[in-house]
Amino acid sequence: MRLNYVKTDPWKIIEDSFNPNQVEASESIFSLGNGAMGHRANFEEQYSGKTFQGSYAAGVYYPDKTKVGWWKNGYPKYFAKVINAPNWIGIDVYCNKAVVDLNTATIHDFRRTLDMQSGLYNRTVTLTTSKGIKLTINSSRFLTLFQEELGCIKYSVKLHEHEAQIKICPYIDSSIKNKDSNWNDQFWEYMGQGSDDNFAILHNKTSKSEFDLCTYQGVSFYLNSEPSGAYSCKEIEGRIAFEMEVNLAPHEEIVVEKMGGYCTSLQQPQKKHQNHVKKIVQVALQKGFDALLDLQKKQWDKIWEMADISIEGDIKAQQGIRFNIFQLNQTYTGKNPLLNIGPKGFTGEKYGGSTYWDTEAYCFPFYMATKNELVAENLLNYRYNHLEKAIENASKLGFTDGAALYPMVTMNGEECHNEWEITFEEIHRNAAIAFAIYNYERYTGKTVYFETKGIDVLVGVVRFWTQRMNFSVQKNQYVILGVTGPNEYENNVDNNWYTNYAAKWCLEYVCIRLAQILKEKPNVHKAIYDRLGLSKSEVLDWKEKSIGIYLPYDSRHGVFLQQDGFLDKDLKKASLIPSTQRPLNQHWSWDRILRSPYIKQADVLQGFYFFEDHFSSDQLKNNFDFYEPYTVHESSLSPSIHAVLAASLGRVEQAYNFYLQTSRLDLDDYNAEVDEGLHITSMAGTWISIVEGFGGMRIKNDAIYFSPQLPKAWDSFSFKINFRNSVIELSVSKKNSSLRLIEGVPVSVFLNKKQVILNAESSIKHP
Amino acid sequence: MRLNYVKTDPWKIIEDSFNPNQVEASESIFSLGNGAMGHRANFEEQYSGKTFQGSYAAGVYYPDKTKVGWWKNGYPKYFAKVINAPNWIGIDVYCNKAVVDLNTATIHDFRRTLDMQSGLYNRTVTLTTSKGIKLTINSSRFLTLFQEELGCIKYSVKLHEHEAQIKICPYIDSSIKNKDSNWNDQFWEYMGQGSDDNFAILHNKTSKSEFDLCTYQGVSFYLNSEPSGAYSCKEIEGRIAFEMEVNLAPHEEIVVEKMGGYCTSLQQPQKKHQNHVKKIVQVALQKGFDALLDLQKKQWDKIWEMADISIEGDIKAQQGIRFNIFQLNQTYTGKNPLLNIGPKGFTGEKYGGSTYWDTEAYCFPFYMATKNELVAENLLNYRYNHLEKAIENASKLGFTDGAALYPMVTMNGEECHNEWEITFEEIHRNAAIAFAIYNYERYTGKTVYFETKGIDVLVGVVRFWTQRMNFSVQKNQYVILGVTGPNEYENNVDNNWYTNYAAKWCLEYVCIRLAQILKEKPNVHKAIYDRLGLSKSEVLDWKEKSIGIYLPYDSRHGVFLQQDGFLDKDLKKASLIPSTQRPLNQHWSWDRILRSPYIKQADVLQGFYFFEDHFSSDQLKNNFDFYEPYTVHESSLSPSIHAVLAASLGRVEQAYNFYLQTSRLDLDDYNAEVDEGLHITSMAGTWISIVEGFGGMRIKNDAIYFSPQLPKAWDSFSFKINFRNSVIELSVSKKNSSLRLIEGVPVSVFLNKKQVILNAESSIKHP
Repeated sequence: MRLNYVKTDPWKIIEDSFNPNQVEASESIFSLGNGAMGHRANFEEQYSGKTFQGSYAAGVYYPDKTKVGWWKNGYPKYFAKVINAPNWIGIDVYCNKAVVDLNTATIHDFRRTLDMQSGLYNRTVTLTTSKGIKLTINSSRFLTLFQEELGCIKYSVKLHEHEAQIKICPYIDSSIKNKDSNWNDQFWEYMGQGSDDNFAILHNKTSKSEFDLCTYQGVSFYLNSEPSGAYSCKEIEGRIAFEMEVNLAPHEEIVVEKMGGYCTSLQQPQKKHQNHVKKIVQVALQKGFDALLDLQKKQWDKIWEMADISIEGDIKAQQGIRFNIFQLNQTYTGKNPLLNIGPKGFTGEKYGGSTYWDTEAYCFPFYMATKNELVAENLLNYRYNHLEKAIENASKLGFTDGAALYPMVTMNGEECHNEWEITFEEIHRNAAIAFAIYNYERYTGKTVYFETKGIDVLVGVVRFWTQRMNFSVQKNQYVILGVTGPNEYENNVDNNWYTNYAAKWCLEYVCIRLAQILKEKPNVHKAIYDRLGLSKSEVLDWKEKSIGIYLPYDSRHGVFLQQDGFLDKDLKKASLIPSTQRPLNQHWSWDRILRSPYIKQADVLQGFYFFEDHFSSDQLKNNFDFYEPYTVHESSLSPSIHAVLAASLGRVEQAYNFYLQTSRLDLDDYNAEVDEGLHITSMAGTWISIVEGFGGMRIKNDAIYFSPQLPKAWDSFSFKINFRNSVIELSVSKKNSSLRLIEGVPVSVFLNKKQVILNAESSIKHP
Repeated sequence: MRLNYVKTDPWKIIEDSFNPNQVEASESIFSLGNGAMGHRANFEEQYSGKTFQGSYAAGVYYPDKTKVGWWKNGYPKYFAKVINAPNWIGIDVYCNKAVVDLNTATIHDFRRTLDMQSGLYNRTVTLTTSKGIKLTINSSRFLTLFQEELGCIKYSVKLHEHEAQIKICPYIDSSIKNKDSNWNDQFWEYMGQGSDDNFAILHNKTSKSEFDLCTYQGVSFYLNSEPSGAYSCKEIEGRIAFEMEVNLAPHEEIVVEKMGGYCTSLQQPQKKHQNHVKKIVQVALQKGFDALLDLQKKQWDKIWEMADISIEGDIKAQQGIRFNIFQLNQTYTGKNPLLNIGPKGFTGEKYGGSTYWDTEAYCFPFYMATKNELVAENLLNYRYNHLEKAIENASKLGFTDGAALYPMVTMNGEECHNEWEITFEEIHRNAAIAFAIYNYERYTGKTVYFETKGIDVLVGVVRFWTQRMNFSVQKNQYVILGVTGPNEYENNVDNNWYTNYAAKWCLEYVCIRLAQILKEKPNVHKAIYDRLGLSKSEVLDWKEKSIGIYLPYDSRHGVFLQQDGFLDKDLKKASLIPSTQRPLNQHWSWDRILRSPYIKQADVLQGFYFFEDHFSSDQLKNNFDFYEPYTVHESSLSPSIHAVLAASLGRVEQAYNFYLQTSRLDLDDYNAEVDEGLHITSMAGTWISIVEGFGGMRIKNDAIYFSPQLPKAWDSFSFKINFRNSVIELSVSKKNSSLRLIEGVPVSVFLNKKQVILNAESSIKHP
């Protein structure tokens, strides 16, 4: 834990003092988003201290020319970069002609809160300006969930004992630079601007990718609660400000309500932008900030009703899990199949792109269980829509006949990553995409998606696997050479068990489902064969290969081998590494990391997480006890999977320790990098570690299972799950565990191995 | 073979027609160098067609900031780039005010020759200018071996049937850009300039690395053979030209002799530059071009007397080997221990740096055998002087206690390479440096170098190996994990046989020699132990490890395994790859190359080359026949090693085929890249393939062995070897082979296993 300035509260994130060194961290932590746009918690007024300014519009990217030391055949030409968008939140404040700047003022009081129940961000600061005037700024803002182009700000300046001239200037500005740029390219082109009485708009276009984006604001000024029209408009190219300058008496207050945000060509064609956002502004200004906030609260209420996890007795754990659920909902709402869950959401630029295997492996269950099937389908459709690009991607690497390799990171389906050991070799991502289709089927019990779209993706994936493996005469089995597994602290290894097993599973899954469909819906089967150019012999080849895949195993330790040769390493446990050398990736050269046994994140154990029911709990125990001691958990995705597996082994306190590492990763800044943005996708892992870890939730054979365990530190916890169109609530206390059907049809559930058909009248308790 | 325009001649390289598409190739092929400076065969006059302008001063580099896609711990901060130096050869020519430019003129006759006996480059071109004037340009130039700062040009323009105004302007110019630059940095800083009657000088400094370099010229003009003073000097910042403008009658001629070149701060302190080069110019202009050329010829005569290899009956082979010997001598003269043998010499910029393992593995035997011990020692001292940097380099990767890792590529001892799989993992380079010390001992029979300097390098190397290996409990042996062998088409493999065997040999060699020294020179032994902080237990540890190193072997095929897991590959022979997919590195993605069995250059077989006498010829045969069919020879260093080994197996015609691939690699442009420069270091491999291949030369137990074989295509061949201060000549004809002592003390030689003490009176013939 590196930071501990965030005050605990079950529903709020609170910072109650000003420290210039934590401004960038707080800018990340207090970020706002509504799925379509978002921004870091930058101050509205100018700030000359260390700050990382960031505002983002979902799905808008720039194809930044690849930068590598030595070009290798097959590298993608571009990296799709998340773009820092024009500023719409800015409000300059001058007091007696001098700019108000928290970095030069004397701060008496400072407090910010992020109310997760409403998505409202509030900041109050009382300061004395460099010219000796004391004043209080109060700023509230939120990004509306009901109108995705709209954000609302209410910003006030109130004098204390002295009179002063105050100028307040809400503005929009497109002179923006990206932190993350390979060649210092200009990402935005200026396309025009316009304004009238209380409305201003800037038009920009991204270079090369040609996304249109308009940035807009509408304003109402109030002087001591009375509307005021005494302001003017100042324009230069790329910047429009409304300026109100007044002489305030002591204790008088000036307020501006600013309604603004973005509209992009993903939402509306460019020519409609002006009318569209102007109408939004008119309605918004008419309703006013407070009424809009009421609407916003109702939206968040709906989200929380389904998604909340309550934890009693451990306020830090409670705050942590709610923060994670809140951020996941800010990042992705599931409405738009063009969008996905960027690793930093709207909180930073690092990693670029928007979609990693994180989506399918970590985030998919969260959205599926706390939202609905349509959201889950949108996530699946995202990949279905990229199938052609995945086939193109594979063909660039020499694969043929419809083999598909999904990208390591992407915005539009094209590969963006450019390290050969990851881009070309971390191919297990293909299996996670297949697994999500399986996971969807198991949650929803619906087969139409598989039959019409899922199978297309799966056949592309399976064709890739069958071409990627080769027959080893020596082993008399199929091998998969030259891969990077989930543990990225190994590169270019042979027969990574996780990859081989996941490939085998993909082949089996497709073969089994095709056989089922043939039996149950021969017409559908024929349509699939026709559409995908399948033949009996091709599917037979898959079957043969699925049986023939080599799975490295060591009988002496009774464990699957992470890869060929793993046991040749110098097997010293991670606990022996001096803490001064951690994290390894900041202290050790890459070759040293590679030849060490140290594991960045679950690898063999990721396979046990996905395919737990394929193995005995003795096998899980052996592998967990063998690999965990070498695991350094230097990926934010690691502790959650270990929490689930530890819980599965009945080690609830060990699971709790892993949970701690994941749930407050950003709030407490465990990895010393929260200033760069939040770890959005790993937040879903925290949800998993409660639901599948402490809740012991599993889905098998059309039924849902729970085997809850309560960490000592907690009095109780509860969560809801959307399963096959019903909503079930699990409540776990020190006394007992109970299951309730909240809504929907009766469901077959198991609680601690006891089966019940849960209906509206019944609930089940244990013991 | 991609080009065949070079005319064959035993001593000359000839191009007798003008083709704009081969200008860049010829600029490489006709390059000049004298060890201290060199340049591509750019035209003196302006040329608006495709050209790669390049002039280089030895040892002068720019530390170009590293460019990578994703930074990895341990990467060097800079890449030492070979810098394109200011132009000193330029001569602008105007005819009736229009610039003379071969790209716009009509060319009637064009011929260039590079006379390898004298190092003289000559070009004659008869053209009609764009304004209709016919004229002949004759240009001759050479870089003197007796005065390394000096180059001489004689340049004439002669009219044909029309009169015309001719302006001829020899100039020096420092407005130069590098082709190879990461960030478009300015490599040169301007520091001043000066001129007088017939002398001009520019002073520049390299940015960051702060090498001073002056560029100078002195000129004499002649009008129809009479000296002329009717010229003026034109200066702008960074450019000084002497301009002579005359009206020539038909058949009249204007000639300029231009003496110029560079002086760098590696040769003289900056403040002496002006006086130093001015003196050189005065002497040179006084002697005149023709007299200087006579001196030059004498210098080359001396080189050829020792280094020439004559081949009768195969003029292409003859031209090829002489071209290679010529270029090696142009690149490195062995005088300066600060310099080394860049992979492109003075013929291009690619690869940067100056020193790879090529020096020790390929070039060292050539220079040792055709020059003298001092030259060999200078090459060894280069590494000895970099020992501290090599220890620093290893410490950046986590090694301690004096472990040394020599850089993959360097100028000043610092690592410059920046791909983890090469920089951190291609560690076998350390063994090549150790091997050169052994090779020196075996050639010279001298032990002082080892005792005073060599052992220091070796102890650093051995300490690296012992720390780099780890004990595998599973194998009960020491393993070396995560390496890249000589075959760079494999990365991050475990237990590369070559690397493991070479490491084992390093340990054994040092232990054996230390034991010898202890026995024969206990005082020297004590001095070594004291100087290097050695202890009995440390050396005992080396011995133990040298015995315990794991050497992968497959008993079914009876071969050493290139690395663990090699036999899991899809073992299709390289001959089955469609030619449209060759070279692989231009057609296959990197992952596909890595998981294929294809071998870029000798790997296991490199070990057989170095340590041939450790193995039986059956072992050689098995390994050669197993690995060669997978070898794609996509490194210029590959065919020569295979030629030696094929010859060793008595397969002289197979050896000859490999020889063809190496000897005219650049003249015939096998790799379709000669325009980027010549493959200087691989030229030494050609020499090796004759001397150690067809000549069968070996050194064992203080004796030199020959077992010659004559390829069918040749009538005879002969070469000389400097062995233990004697010079021996081997002559091989269809009738017999003979050995002669050319000078020096009597030597024990074996010819086809028959031993003789060769002395001044005797020679040996077989049969």
